[in-house]
Amino acid sequence: MQKLKTEIEAHFVRHLEEHFFWRQLAEESPAGFQAVRETLLAPGKRLRPLLFCAACRAAGREPFPDLMPIALALELAHSFILIHDDIIDRSAERRGKSTLPKRMDGLFAAQPADGFRGSDFALVTGDLLYTLAIESLLQAEASDSQKTEAVRLFTRAALDTGRGALLEMRAAQTPLDELTTEDIEKIYALKTGSYTFALPLQLAACFSDVWKKDDPVFTTIGKYAGVAFQLRNDQHDTDDLRDARRTWALVYAGSKEALGDSGTLTAVKKAQEENTRCALASVDSPELSALLKQVLSATA
Amino acid sequence: MQKLKTEIEAHFVRHLEEHFFWRQLAEESPAGFQAVRETLLAPGKRLRPLLFCAACRAAGREPFPDLMPIALALELAHSFILIHDDIIDRSAERRGKSTLPKRMDGLFAAQPADGFRGSDFALVTGDLLYTLAIESLLQAEASDSQKTEAVRLFTRAALDTGRGALLEMRAAQTPLDELTTEDIEKIYALKTGSYTFALPLQLAACFSDVWKKDDPVFTTIGKYAGVAFQLRNDQHDTDDLRDARRTWALVYAGSKEALGDSGTLTAVKKAQEENTRCALASVDSPELSALLKQVLSATA
Repeated sequence: MQKLKTEIEAHFVRHLEEHFFWRQLAEESPAGFQAVRETLLAPGKRLRPLLFCAACRAAGREPFPDLMPIALALELAHSFILIHDDIIDRSAERRGKSTLPKRMDGLFAAQPADGFRGSDFALVTGDLLYTLAIESLLQAEASDSQKTEAVRLFTRAALDTGRGALLEMRAAQTPLDELTTEDIEKIYALKTGSYTFALPLQLAACFSDVWKKDDPVFTTIGKYAGVAFQLRNDQHDTDDLRDARRTWALVYAGSKEALGDSGTLTAVKKAQEENTRCALASVDSPELSALLKQVLSATA
Repeated sequence: MQKLKTEIEAHFVRHLEEHFFWRQLAEESPAGFQAVRETLLAPGKRLRPLLFCAACRAAGREPFPDLMPIALALELAHSFILIHDDIIDRSAERRGKSTLPKRMDGLFAAQPADGFRGSDFALVTGDLLYTLAIESLLQAEASDSQKTEAVRLFTRAALDTGRGALLEMRAAQTPLDELTTEDIEKIYALKTGSYTFALPLQLAACFSDVWKKDDPVFTTIGKYAGVAFQLRNDQHDTDDLRDARRTWALVYAGSKEALGDSGTLTAVKKAQEENTRCALASVDSPELSALLKQVLSATA
Protein backbone atom coordinates (compact mmCIF):
# COMPACT_ATOMS: atom_id res chain seq x y z
CA MET A 1 0.00 0.00 0.00
CA GLN A 2 2.93 2.33 0.75
CA LYS A 3 4.22 1.72 -2.78
CA LEU A 4 0.83 2.66 -4.19
CA LYS A 5 0.72 5.81 -2.07
CA THR A 6 4.15 6.83 -3.39
CA GLU A 7 2.87 6.23 -6.92
CA ILE A 8 -0.23 8.35 -6.32
CA GLU A 9 1.79 11.20 -4.83
CA ALA A 10 4.26 11.13 -7.71
CA HIS A 11 1.32 11.44 -10.08
CA PHE A 12 0.03 14.41 -8.06
CA VAL A 13 3.42 16.17 -8.18
CA ARG A 14 3.68 15.52 -11.92
CA HIS A 15 0.24 17.02 -12.46
CA LEU A 16 1.30 20.22 -10.67
CA GLU A 17 4.49 20.38 -12.70
CA GLU A 18 3.16 19.54 -16.13
CA HIS A 19 -0.44 20.68 -16.52
CA PHE A 20 -0.58 23.82 -18.68
CA PHE A 21 -2.89 25.50 -16.19
CA TRP A 22 -0.38 25.24 -13.32
CA ARG A 23 2.50 26.24 -15.59
CA GLN A 24 0.61 29.39 -16.55
CA LEU A 25 -0.29 30.18 -12.94
CA ALA A 26 3.32 29.66 -11.85
CA GLU A 27 4.32 32.28 -14.40
CA GLU A 28 1.47 34.74 -13.90
CA SER A 29 1.18 34.55 -10.11
CA PRO A 30 4.31 32.86 -8.70
CA ALA A 31 3.59 33.52 -5.01
CA GLY A 32 -0.01 32.38 -5.39
CA PHE A 33 1.07 29.21 -7.18
CA GLN A 34 3.61 28.47 -4.46
CA ALA A 35 0.92 28.84 -1.77
CA VAL A 36 -1.39 26.48 -3.64
CA ARG A 37 1.39 23.97 -4.23
CA GLU A 38 2.37 23.86 -0.56
CA THR A 39 -1.26 23.47 0.46
CA LEU A 40 -1.86 20.59 -1.96
CA LEU A 41 1.35 18.75 -1.17
CA ALA A 42 1.03 18.95 2.64
CA PRO A 43 1.30 15.38 3.96
CA GLY A 44 -2.03 13.58 3.65
CA LYS A 45 -3.43 10.07 3.81
CA ARG A 46 -4.44 10.07 0.11
CA LEU A 47 -7.28 7.92 1.38
CA ARG A 48 -9.68 8.29 -1.56
CA PRO A 49 -7.23 7.37 -4.36
CA LEU A 50 -5.90 4.52 -2.22
CA LEU A 51 -9.42 3.17 -1.70
CA PHE A 52 -10.09 3.48 -5.43
CA CYS A 53 -6.92 1.56 -6.35
CA ALA A 54 -7.51 -1.15 -3.72
CA ALA A 55 -11.10 -1.49 -4.91
CA CYS A 56 -9.97 -1.78 -8.54
CA ARG A 57 -7.70 -4.66 -7.63
CA ALA A 58 -10.42 -6.30 -5.56
CA ALA A 59 -12.63 -5.99 -8.65
CA GLY A 60 -10.01 -7.65 -10.84
CA ARG A 61 -8.85 -4.47 -12.58
CA GLU A 62 -5.27 -3.19 -12.35
CA PRO A 63 -5.53 0.62 -11.97
CA PHE A 64 -1.94 1.44 -12.82
CA PRO A 65 -1.26 3.27 -15.12
CA ASP A 66 -4.52 3.54 -17.15
CA LEU A 67 -6.73 4.68 -14.31
CA MET A 68 -4.33 6.96 -12.42
CA PRO A 69 -6.20 10.04 -13.76
CA ILE A 70 -9.25 8.75 -11.86
CA ALA A 71 -7.20 8.41 -8.65
CA LEU A 72 -5.86 11.93 -9.23
CA ALA A 73 -9.38 13.28 -9.78
CA LEU A 74 -10.42 11.96 -6.36
CA GLU A 75 -7.51 13.72 -4.64
CA LEU A 76 -8.10 16.98 -6.56
CA ALA A 77 -11.78 16.90 -5.60
CA HIS A 78 -10.84 16.26 -1.98
CA SER A 79 -8.47 19.26 -2.05
CA PHE A 80 -11.26 21.40 -3.50
CA ILE A 81 -13.60 20.36 -0.66
CA LEU A 82 -10.98 20.98 2.05
CA ILE A 83 -10.21 24.46 0.71
CA HIS A 84 -13.86 25.50 0.53
CA ASP A 85 -14.37 23.97 4.02
CA ASP A 86 -11.46 26.01 5.35
CA ILE A 87 -13.13 29.19 4.03
CA ILE A 88 -16.44 28.26 5.68
CA ASP A 89 -14.82 27.23 8.98
CA ARG A 90 -12.36 30.15 8.89
CA SER A 91 -9.65 27.62 9.75
CA ALA A 92 -6.12 28.94 10.05
CA GLU A 93 -4.46 25.52 10.18
CA ARG A 94 -4.86 22.09 8.62
CA ARG A 95 -2.45 19.18 8.86
CA GLY A 96 -0.21 21.38 11.01
CA LYS A 97 0.22 23.93 8.20
CA SER A 98 -1.44 27.23 7.36
CA THR A 99 -4.57 26.88 5.25
CA LEU A 100 -4.70 28.46 1.78
CA PRO A 101 -6.96 31.40 2.80
CA LYS A 102 -4.57 32.11 5.67
CA ARG A 103 -1.47 31.94 3.45
CA MET A 104 -3.06 34.27 0.91
CA ASP A 105 -4.19 36.68 3.64
CA GLY A 106 -0.50 36.92 4.48
CA LEU A 107 0.48 37.60 0.85
CA PHE A 108 -2.28 40.19 0.42
CA ALA A 109 -1.23 41.88 3.68
CA ALA A 110 2.35 42.19 2.39
CA GLN A 111 1.19 43.37 -1.04
CA PRO A 112 -2.37 44.75 -0.87
CA ALA A 113 -4.83 43.72 -3.58
CA ASP A 114 -7.44 46.47 -3.36
CA GLY A 115 -9.94 44.66 -1.22
CA PHE A 116 -9.38 41.08 -2.36
CA ARG A 117 -8.97 38.72 0.60
CA GLY A 118 -7.18 35.40 1.02
CA SER A 119 -10.54 33.65 1.06
CA ASP A 120 -11.35 35.10 -2.41
CA PHE A 121 -8.21 33.58 -3.89
CA ALA A 122 -8.97 30.28 -2.11
CA LEU A 123 -12.56 30.29 -3.35
CA VAL A 124 -11.48 30.56 -6.99
CA THR A 125 -8.67 28.03 -6.48
CA GLY A 126 -11.19 25.55 -5.08
CA ASP A 127 -13.37 26.02 -8.17
CA LEU A 128 -10.33 25.45 -10.37
CA LEU A 129 -9.38 22.23 -8.51
CA TYR A 130 -12.93 20.99 -9.03
CA THR A 131 -12.61 21.71 -12.75
CA LEU A 132 -9.23 19.95 -12.92
CA ALA A 133 -10.76 16.94 -11.16
CA ILE A 134 -13.47 16.61 -13.79
CA GLU A 135 -10.98 17.12 -16.58
CA SER A 136 -8.82 14.37 -15.08
CA LEU A 137 -11.75 11.91 -15.13
CA LEU A 138 -11.83 12.38 -18.91
CA GLN A 139 -8.15 11.51 -19.22
CA ALA A 140 -8.38 7.88 -18.11
CA GLU A 141 -7.60 5.22 -20.69
CA ALA A 142 -11.20 4.09 -21.02
CA SER A 143 -14.20 4.19 -23.33
CA ASP A 144 -16.35 7.30 -23.72
CA SER A 145 -19.22 5.42 -22.15
CA GLN A 146 -17.12 4.62 -19.06
CA LYS A 147 -15.98 8.24 -18.86
CA THR A 148 -19.48 9.70 -19.02
CA GLU A 149 -20.49 7.19 -16.36
CA ALA A 150 -17.53 8.25 -14.19
CA VAL A 151 -18.53 11.92 -14.49
CA ARG A 152 -22.13 11.00 -13.65
CA LEU A 153 -21.05 9.11 -10.49
CA PHE A 154 -18.81 12.02 -9.57
CA THR A 155 -21.60 14.61 -9.89
CA ARG A 156 -23.94 12.40 -7.86
CA ALA A 157 -21.42 12.29 -5.01
CA ALA A 158 -20.79 16.04 -5.28
CA LEU A 159 -24.52 16.71 -4.93
CA ASP A 160 -24.53 14.58 -1.76
CA THR A 161 -21.52 16.46 -0.36
CA GLY A 162 -23.05 19.89 -0.95
CA ARG A 163 -26.45 18.78 0.31
CA GLY A 164 -24.76 17.50 3.49
CA ALA A 165 -23.04 20.87 3.95
CA LEU A 166 -26.36 22.74 3.58
CA LEU A 167 -28.06 20.31 5.99
CA GLU A 168 -25.28 21.03 8.47
CA MET A 169 -26.11 24.75 8.28
CA ARG A 170 -29.80 23.97 8.74
CA ALA A 171 -28.96 21.81 11.78
CA ALA A 172 -26.94 24.70 13.22
CA GLN A 173 -30.16 26.74 13.16
CA THR A 174 -32.13 24.01 14.94
CA PRO A 175 -32.37 23.91 18.75
CA LEU A 176 -30.19 21.12 20.13
CA ASP A 177 -33.07 19.25 21.76
CA GLU A 178 -34.94 19.05 18.43
CA LEU A 179 -32.10 17.16 16.73
CA THR A 180 -31.51 13.39 16.90
CA THR A 181 -28.27 11.48 16.43
CA GLU A 182 -29.93 10.07 13.27
CA ASP A 183 -30.13 13.61 11.86
CA ILE A 184 -26.40 13.99 12.39
CA GLU A 185 -25.64 10.55 10.93
CA LYS A 186 -27.50 11.58 7.78
CA ILE A 187 -25.28 14.67 7.49
CA TYR A 188 -22.12 12.59 8.03
CA ALA A 189 -23.19 10.03 5.43
CA LEU A 190 -23.96 12.72 2.83
CA LYS A 191 -21.13 15.13 3.51
CA THR A 192 -18.31 12.64 4.11
CA GLY A 193 -19.39 9.08 3.35
CA SER A 194 -20.59 9.58 -0.20
CA TYR A 195 -17.46 11.06 -1.80
CA THR A 196 -14.92 9.46 0.56
CA PHE A 197 -16.13 5.85 0.58
CA ALA A 198 -19.00 5.20 -1.84
CA LEU A 199 -17.55 7.10 -4.81
CA PRO A 200 -14.10 5.41 -4.96
CA LEU A 201 -15.81 1.99 -4.91
CA GLN A 202 -18.41 2.98 -7.51
CA LEU A 203 -15.68 4.35 -9.79
CA ALA A 204 -13.74 1.10 -9.44
CA ALA A 205 -16.90 -0.80 -10.39
CA CYS A 206 -17.35 1.51 -13.38
CA PHE A 207 -14.05 0.27 -14.85
CA SER A 208 -14.35 -3.38 -13.82
CA ASP A 209 -16.04 -6.28 -15.59
CA VAL A 210 -16.76 -8.02 -12.29
CA TRP A 211 -18.46 -5.47 -10.03
CA LYS A 212 -21.79 -3.91 -10.91
CA LYS A 213 -21.58 -0.12 -10.72
CA ASP A 214 -25.14 0.27 -9.45
CA ASP A 215 -24.72 -2.30 -6.67
CA PRO A 216 -26.42 -0.71 -3.63
CA VAL A 217 -23.74 -2.19 -1.37
CA PHE A 218 -21.45 0.78 -2.22
CA THR A 219 -23.97 3.27 -0.84
CA THR A 220 -24.36 1.10 2.27
CA ILE A 221 -20.60 0.94 2.86
CA GLY A 222 -20.33 4.68 2.18
CA LYS A 223 -23.00 5.47 4.75
CA TYR A 224 -21.62 3.35 7.60
CA ALA A 225 -17.97 4.11 6.89
CA GLY A 226 -18.69 7.83 6.57
CA VAL A 227 -20.45 7.93 9.93
CA ALA A 228 -17.70 5.84 11.61
CA PHE A 229 -15.01 8.07 10.07
CA GLN A 230 -16.67 11.27 11.31
CA LEU A 231 -17.29 9.81 14.77
CA ARG A 232 -13.56 9.07 14.99
CA ASN A 233 -12.74 12.63 13.88
CA ASP A 234 -15.18 14.11 16.37
CA GLN A 235 -13.17 12.56 19.19
CA HIS A 236 -10.01 14.31 18.02
CA ASP A 237 -11.15 17.52 16.40
CA THR A 238 -11.75 20.26 18.92
CA ASP A 239 -12.48 22.93 16.31
CA ASP A 240 -16.00 21.61 15.89
CA LEU A 241 -16.60 21.97 19.62
CA ARG A 242 -15.23 25.50 19.65
CA ASP A 243 -17.54 26.48 16.78
CA ALA A 244 -20.47 24.77 18.52
CA ARG A 245 -21.10 22.64 15.44
CA ARG A 246 -23.87 20.07 15.82
CA THR A 247 -21.68 16.96 16.17
CA TRP A 248 -23.08 13.54 17.02
CA ALA A 249 -21.46 13.81 20.45
CA LEU A 250 -23.01 17.22 21.16
CA VAL A 251 -26.48 16.09 20.13
CA TYR A 252 -26.11 12.93 22.22
CA ALA A 253 -24.82 14.87 25.24
CA GLY A 254 -27.60 17.43 24.90
CA SER A 255 -25.35 20.29 26.05
CA LYS A 256 -21.75 21.45 25.73
CA GLU A 257 -21.26 20.91 29.47
CA ALA A 258 -22.14 17.22 29.23
CA LEU A 259 -19.81 16.68 26.28
CA GLY A 260 -16.87 15.46 28.36
CA ASP A 261 -18.93 13.07 30.48
CA SER A 262 -17.74 9.49 30.35
CA GLY A 263 -21.25 8.40 29.31
CA THR A 264 -21.06 10.52 26.15
CA LEU A 265 -17.55 9.36 25.29
CA THR A 266 -18.62 5.72 25.72
CA ALA A 267 -21.65 6.26 23.49
CA VAL A 268 -19.54 7.89 20.72
CA LYS A 269 -17.03 5.02 20.81
CA LYS A 270 -19.81 2.46 20.74
CA ALA A 271 -21.54 4.14 17.79
CA GLN A 272 -18.21 4.35 15.99
CA GLU A 273 -17.56 0.62 16.52
CA GLU A 274 -21.06 -0.32 15.45
CA ASN A 275 -20.85 1.69 12.22
CA THR A 276 -17.38 0.29 11.51
CA ARG A 277 -18.71 -3.23 12.00
CA CYS A 278 -21.65 -2.58 9.63
CA ALA A 279 -19.32 -1.11 6.98
CA LEU A 280 -16.88 -4.02 7.16
CA ALA A 281 -19.68 -6.62 7.14
CA SER A 282 -20.52 -5.47 3.58
CA VAL A 283 -16.98 -5.80 2.20
CA ASP A 284 -15.96 -9.07 0.52
CA SER A 285 -12.35 -8.42 -0.42
CA PRO A 286 -9.72 -9.06 2.33
CA GLU A 287 -7.40 -6.28 1.03
CA LEU A 288 -10.15 -3.69 0.91
CA SER A 289 -11.38 -4.82 4.30
CA ALA A 290 -7.89 -4.42 5.79
CA LEU A 291 -7.57 -0.91 4.34
CA LEU A 292 -10.98 0.14 5.61
CA LYS A 293 -10.24 -1.32 9.05
CA GLN A 294 -7.02 0.67 9.20
CA VAL A 295 -8.75 3.88 8.10
CA LEU A 296 -11.62 3.52 10.54
CA SER A 297 -9.69 2.23 13.56
CA ALA A 298 -9.86 4.49 16.58
CA THR A 299 -6.09 4.60 17.00
CA ALA A 300 -5.21 5.46 13.37
CA MET B 1 -35.60 35.00 -30.28
CA GLN B 2 -38.19 35.96 -27.62
CA LYS B 3 -39.89 32.59 -28.17
CA LEU B 4 -36.59 30.81 -27.63
CA LYS B 5 -35.93 32.79 -24.46
CA THR B 6 -39.36 31.79 -23.11
CA GLU B 7 -38.55 28.17 -23.94
CA ILE B 8 -35.18 28.37 -22.12
CA GLU B 9 -36.73 29.96 -19.05
CA ALA B 10 -39.49 27.36 -18.94
CA HIS B 11 -36.79 24.69 -19.01
CA PHE B 12 -34.99 26.44 -16.13
CA VAL B 13 -38.17 26.61 -14.03
CA ARG B 14 -38.89 22.94 -14.75
CA HIS B 15 -35.39 22.00 -13.63
CA LEU B 16 -35.91 23.78 -10.29
CA GLU B 17 -39.29 22.08 -9.84
CA GLU B 18 -38.43 18.57 -10.91
CA HIS B 19 -34.78 17.77 -10.16
CA PHE B 20 -34.54 15.49 -7.12
CA PHE B 21 -31.82 17.67 -5.62
CA TRP B 22 -34.03 20.79 -5.53
CA ARG B 23 -37.01 18.79 -4.30
CA GLN B 24 -34.93 17.53 -1.40
CA LEU B 25 -33.58 21.01 -0.62
CA ALA B 26 -37.10 22.47 -0.73
CA GLU B 27 -38.08 19.94 1.92
CA GLU B 28 -34.95 20.06 4.07
CA SER B 29 -34.28 23.79 3.96
CA PRO B 30 -37.41 25.59 2.64
CA ALA B 31 -36.23 29.15 3.32
CA GLY B 32 -32.81 28.43 1.79
CA PHE B 33 -34.40 26.90 -1.29
CA GLN B 34 -36.71 29.89 -1.68
CA ALA B 35 -33.73 32.27 -1.53
CA VAL B 36 -31.88 30.26 -4.19
CA ARG B 37 -34.95 30.05 -6.40
CA GLU B 38 -35.55 33.80 -6.28
CA THR B 39 -31.89 34.45 -7.05
CA LEU B 40 -31.86 32.09 -10.02
CA LEU B 41 -35.13 33.28 -11.49
CA ALA B 42 -34.39 37.01 -11.23
CA PRO B 43 -34.87 38.48 -14.72
CA GLY B 44 -31.80 37.89 -16.87
CA LYS B 45 -30.76 38.07 -20.50
CA ARG B 46 -30.15 34.27 -20.70
CA LEU B 47 -27.43 35.30 -23.11
CA ARG B 48 -25.32 32.12 -23.08
CA PRO B 49 -28.14 29.64 -23.80
CA LEU B 50 -29.53 32.03 -26.45
CA LEU B 51 -26.14 32.22 -28.14
CA PHE B 52 -25.83 28.44 -28.00
CA CYS B 53 -29.26 27.92 -29.59
CA ALA B 54 -28.68 30.57 -32.27
CA ALA B 55 -25.28 29.04 -33.03
CA CYS B 56 -26.81 25.55 -33.28
CA ARG B 57 -29.27 26.81 -35.89
CA ALA B 58 -26.53 28.63 -37.76
CA ALA B 59 -24.62 25.33 -37.77
CA GLY B 60 -27.61 23.48 -39.20
CA ARG B 61 -28.62 21.74 -35.99
CA GLU B 62 -32.00 22.29 -34.30
CA PRO B 63 -31.32 22.52 -30.53
CA PHE B 64 -34.88 21.99 -29.37
CA PRO B 65 -35.60 19.71 -27.54
CA ASP B 66 -32.56 17.35 -27.66
CA LEU B 67 -29.95 19.92 -26.68
CA MET B 68 -31.90 21.95 -24.12
CA PRO B 69 -29.88 20.32 -21.29
CA ILE B 70 -26.79 21.95 -22.83
CA ALA B 71 -28.51 25.34 -22.87
CA LEU B 72 -29.54 24.78 -19.26
CA ALA B 73 -25.98 23.83 -18.30
CA LEU B 74 -24.73 27.18 -19.62
CA GLU B 75 -27.24 29.12 -17.52
CA LEU B 76 -26.53 27.02 -14.39
CA ALA B 77 -22.79 27.61 -14.84
CA HIS B 78 -23.39 31.33 -15.28
CA SER B 79 -25.45 31.39 -12.05
CA PHE B 80 -22.61 29.58 -10.27
CA ILE B 81 -20.11 32.20 -11.46
CA LEU B 82 -22.37 35.14 -10.50
CA ILE B 83 -22.91 33.76 -7.01
CA HIS B 84 -19.20 33.17 -6.36
CA ASP B 85 -18.49 36.63 -7.84
CA ASP B 86 -21.02 38.19 -5.47
CA ILE B 87 -19.18 36.60 -2.52
CA ILE B 88 -15.83 37.93 -3.75
CA ASP B 89 -17.19 41.39 -4.53
CA ARG B 90 -19.34 41.44 -1.36
CA SER B 91 -22.19 42.68 -3.57
CA ALA B 92 -25.52 43.29 -1.87
CA GLU B 93 -27.49 43.72 -5.09
CA ARG B 94 -27.62 42.25 -8.57
CA ARG B 95 -30.26 42.84 -11.22
CA GLY B 96 -32.03 45.12 -8.75
CA LYS B 97 -32.50 42.28 -6.24
CA SER B 98 -30.60 41.15 -3.14
CA THR B 99 -27.76 38.74 -3.87
CA LEU B 100 -27.84 35.23 -2.42
CA PRO B 101 -25.19 35.90 0.29
CA LYS B 102 -27.18 38.97 1.34
CA ARG B 103 -30.50 37.10 1.43
CA MET B 104 -28.95 34.33 3.50
CA ASP B 105 -27.31 36.83 5.86
CA GLY B 106 -30.84 38.03 6.51
CA LEU B 107 -32.12 34.51 7.20
CA PHE B 108 -29.18 33.71 9.47
CA ALA B 109 -29.69 36.98 11.35
CA ALA B 110 -33.33 36.06 11.99
CA GLN B 111 -32.44 32.50 12.98
CA PRO B 112 -28.75 32.25 13.95
CA ALA B 113 -26.72 29.35 12.60
CA ASP B 114 -23.83 29.18 15.07
CA GLY B 115 -21.29 31.10 13.05
CA PHE B 116 -22.34 30.17 9.52
CA ARG B 117 -22.67 33.24 7.29
CA GLY B 118 -24.75 33.96 4.23
CA SER B 119 -21.61 33.73 2.10
CA ASP B 120 -21.01 30.15 3.37
CA PHE B 121 -24.44 29.08 2.16
CA ALA B 122 -23.83 30.87 -1.15
CA LEU B 123 -20.41 29.27 -1.56
CA VAL B 124 -21.84 25.74 -1.28
CA THR B 125 -24.82 26.64 -3.47
CA GLY B 126 -22.42 27.86 -6.17
CA ASP B 127 -20.55 24.55 -6.01
CA LEU B 128 -23.86 22.70 -6.33
CA LEU B 129 -24.93 24.76 -9.36
CA TYR B 130 -21.60 23.92 -10.99
CA THR B 131 -22.24 20.24 -10.34
CA LEU B 132 -25.78 20.48 -11.72
CA ALA B 133 -24.39 22.18 -14.84
CA ILE B 134 -22.02 19.29 -15.53
CA GLU B 135 -24.73 16.76 -14.82
CA SER B 136 -26.98 18.58 -17.30
CA LEU B 137 -24.34 18.32 -20.05
CA LEU B 138 -24.62 14.54 -19.69
CA GLN B 139 -28.38 14.62 -20.18
CA ALA B 140 -28.39 15.85 -23.77
CA GLU B 141 -29.71 13.47 -26.41
CA ALA B 142 -26.29 12.80 -27.91
CA SER B 143 -23.56 10.19 -28.19
CA ASP B 144 -21.15 9.47 -25.32
CA SER B 145 -18.35 10.81 -27.46
CA GLN B 146 -20.20 14.13 -27.96
CA LYS B 147 -20.93 14.32 -24.24
CA THR B 148 -17.33 13.75 -23.15
CA GLU B 149 -16.31 16.39 -25.69
CA ALA B 150 -18.91 18.81 -24.28
CA VAL B 151 -17.57 18.25 -20.73
CA ARG B 152 -14.01 18.77 -22.01
CA LEU B 153 -14.94 22.08 -23.69
CA PHE B 154 -16.76 23.12 -20.54
CA THR B 155 -13.76 22.42 -18.26
CA ARG B 156 -11.45 24.29 -20.65
CA ALA B 157 -13.67 27.38 -20.43
CA ALA B 158 -13.94 27.03 -16.63
CA LEU B 159 -10.13 26.98 -16.37
CA ASP B 160 -10.02 30.21 -18.40
CA THR B 161 -12.66 31.83 -16.18
CA GLY B 162 -10.85 30.95 -12.94
CA ARG B 163 -7.48 31.91 -14.38
CA GLY B 164 -8.93 35.29 -15.39
CA ALA B 165 -10.24 35.80 -11.83
CA LEU B 166 -6.81 35.02 -10.33
CA LEU B 167 -5.12 37.33 -12.88
CA GLU B 168 -7.53 40.06 -11.81
CA MET B 169 -6.34 39.66 -8.19
CA ARG B 170 -2.75 39.75 -9.34
CA ALA B 171 -3.46 42.94 -11.33
CA ALA B 172 -5.00 44.48 -8.21
CA GLN B 173 -1.60 44.01 -6.52
CA THR B 174 0.22 45.67 -9.41
CA PRO B 175 0.86 49.44 -9.43
CA LEU B 176 -1.44 51.13 -11.93
CA ASP B 177 1.40 52.53 -14.03
CA GLU B 178 2.87 49.04 -14.53
CA LEU B 179 -0.32 47.73 -16.17
CA THR B 180 -1.27 48.10 -19.83
CA THR B 181 -4.72 48.03 -21.40
CA GLU B 182 -3.56 44.78 -23.07
CA ASP B 183 -3.15 43.20 -19.60
CA ILE B 184 -6.75 44.10 -18.81
CA GLU B 185 -7.99 42.85 -22.18
CA LYS B 186 -6.39 39.48 -21.44
CA ILE B 187 -8.29 39.31 -18.14
CA TYR B 188 -11.58 40.25 -19.86
CA ALA B 189 -11.04 37.67 -22.59
CA LEU B 190 -10.29 34.89 -20.07
CA LYS B 191 -12.77 35.76 -17.34
CA THR B 192 -15.74 36.74 -19.50
CA GLY B 193 -15.11 36.01 -23.18
CA SER B 194 -14.27 32.33 -22.89
CA TYR B 195 -17.38 31.00 -21.15
CA THR B 196 -19.80 33.67 -22.40
CA PHE B 197 -18.97 33.70 -26.12
CA ALA B 198 -16.46 31.03 -27.14
CA LEU B 199 -18.02 28.15 -25.18
CA PRO B 200 -21.61 28.42 -26.49
CA LEU B 201 -20.26 28.44 -30.07
CA GLN B 202 -17.87 25.54 -29.42
CA LEU B 203 -20.66 23.51 -27.84
CA ALA B 204 -22.89 24.19 -30.86
CA ALA B 205 -20.05 22.97 -33.10
CA CYS B 206 -19.68 19.86 -30.95
CA PHE B 207 -23.23 18.79 -31.86
CA SER B 208 -23.19 19.94 -35.47
CA ASP B 209 -22.01 18.11 -38.59
CA VAL B 210 -21.14 21.37 -40.33
CA TRP B 211 -18.96 23.36 -37.91
CA LYS B 212 -15.59 22.08 -36.75
CA LYS B 213 -15.40 22.17 -32.95
CA ASP B 214 -11.70 23.03 -32.90
CA ASP B 215 -12.08 25.93 -35.32
CA PRO B 216 -9.91 28.72 -33.85
CA VAL B 217 -12.50 31.29 -34.97
CA PHE B 218 -14.53 30.56 -31.81
CA THR B 219 -11.64 31.60 -29.57
CA THR B 220 -11.16 34.73 -31.68
CA ILE B 221 -14.83 35.70 -31.43
CA GLY B 222 -14.77 34.91 -27.68
CA LYS B 223 -11.79 37.16 -27.13
CA TYR B 224 -13.08 40.23 -29.01
CA ALA B 225 -16.68 39.85 -27.89
CA GLY B 226 -15.60 39.32 -24.26
CA VAL B 227 -13.52 42.48 -24.28
CA ALA B 228 -16.28 44.50 -26.00
CA PHE B 229 -18.86 43.16 -23.55
CA GLN B 230 -16.76 44.12 -20.51
CA LEU B 231 -15.94 47.54 -21.93
CA ARG B 232 -19.65 48.15 -22.27
CA ASN B 233 -20.23 47.02 -18.67
CA ASP B 234 -17.40 49.20 -17.40
CA GLN B 235 -19.25 52.25 -18.64
CA HIS B 236 -22.31 51.36 -16.58
CA ASP B 237 -21.01 49.49 -13.56
CA THR B 238 -19.90 51.85 -10.83
CA ASP B 239 -19.16 49.04 -8.33
CA ASP B 240 -15.86 48.33 -10.05
CA LEU B 241 -14.86 51.96 -9.64
CA ARG B 242 -15.82 52.00 -5.99
CA ASP B 243 -13.73 48.88 -5.34
CA ALA B 244 -10.84 50.39 -7.30
CA ARG B 245 -10.76 47.33 -9.59
CA ARG B 246 -8.26 47.52 -12.42
CA THR B 247 -10.69 48.22 -15.27
CA TRP B 248 -9.57 49.05 -18.81
CA ALA B 249 -10.80 52.62 -18.27
CA LEU B 250 -8.84 53.03 -15.02
CA VAL B 251 -5.62 51.70 -16.53
CA TYR B 252 -6.10 53.93 -19.60
CA ALA B 253 -6.85 56.99 -17.45
CA GLY B 254 -3.88 56.27 -15.20
CA SER B 255 -5.69 57.53 -12.09
CA LYS B 256 -9.18 57.56 -10.58
CA GLU B 257 -9.31 61.33 -10.95
CA ALA B 258 -8.83 61.14 -14.71
CA LEU B 259 -11.51 58.45 -15.10
CA GLY B 260 -14.33 60.85 -15.93
CA ASP B 261 -12.32 62.85 -18.47
CA SER B 262 -13.88 62.99 -21.88
CA GLY B 263 -10.64 61.64 -23.38
CA THR B 264 -10.94 58.45 -21.33
CA LEU B 265 -14.62 57.99 -22.15
CA THR B 266 -13.91 58.44 -25.84
CA ALA B 267 -11.09 55.88 -25.68
CA VAL B 268 -13.28 53.30 -23.91
CA LYS B 269 -16.05 53.76 -26.50
CA LYS B 270 -13.57 53.49 -29.34
CA ALA B 271 -11.99 50.31 -27.93
CA GLN B 272 -15.47 48.85 -27.43
CA GLU B 273 -16.44 49.61 -31.03
CA GLU B 274 -13.19 48.22 -32.37
CA ASN B 275 -13.54 44.95 -30.45
CA THR B 276 -17.18 44.65 -31.49
CA ARG B 277 -16.18 45.14 -35.13
CA CYS B 278 -13.47 42.45 -34.86
CA ALA B 279 -15.87 40.00 -33.22
CA LEU B 280 -18.58 40.55 -35.85
CA ALA B 281 -16.09 40.33 -38.71
CA SER B 282 -15.50 36.66 -37.78
CA VAL B 283 -19.18 35.67 -37.77
CA ASP B 284 -20.71 34.25 -40.95
CA SER B 285 -24.31 33.65 -39.95
CA PRO B 286 -26.68 36.64 -40.23
CA GLU B 287 -28.84 35.50 -37.24
CA LEU B 288 -25.85 35.00 -34.98
CA SER B 289 -24.40 38.29 -36.14
CA ALA B 290 -27.66 40.10 -35.33
CA LEU B 291 -27.77 38.56 -31.85
CA LEU B 292 -24.15 39.44 -31.12
CA LYS B 293 -24.65 42.98 -32.40
CA GLN B 294 -27.62 43.40 -30.08
CA VAL B 295 -25.70 41.99 -27.10
CA LEU B 296 -22.65 44.14 -27.71
CA SER B 297 -24.37 47.38 -28.67
CA ALA B 298 -23.68 50.28 -26.37
CA THR B 299 -27.34 51.06 -25.84
CA ALA B 300 -28.48 47.51 -25.01
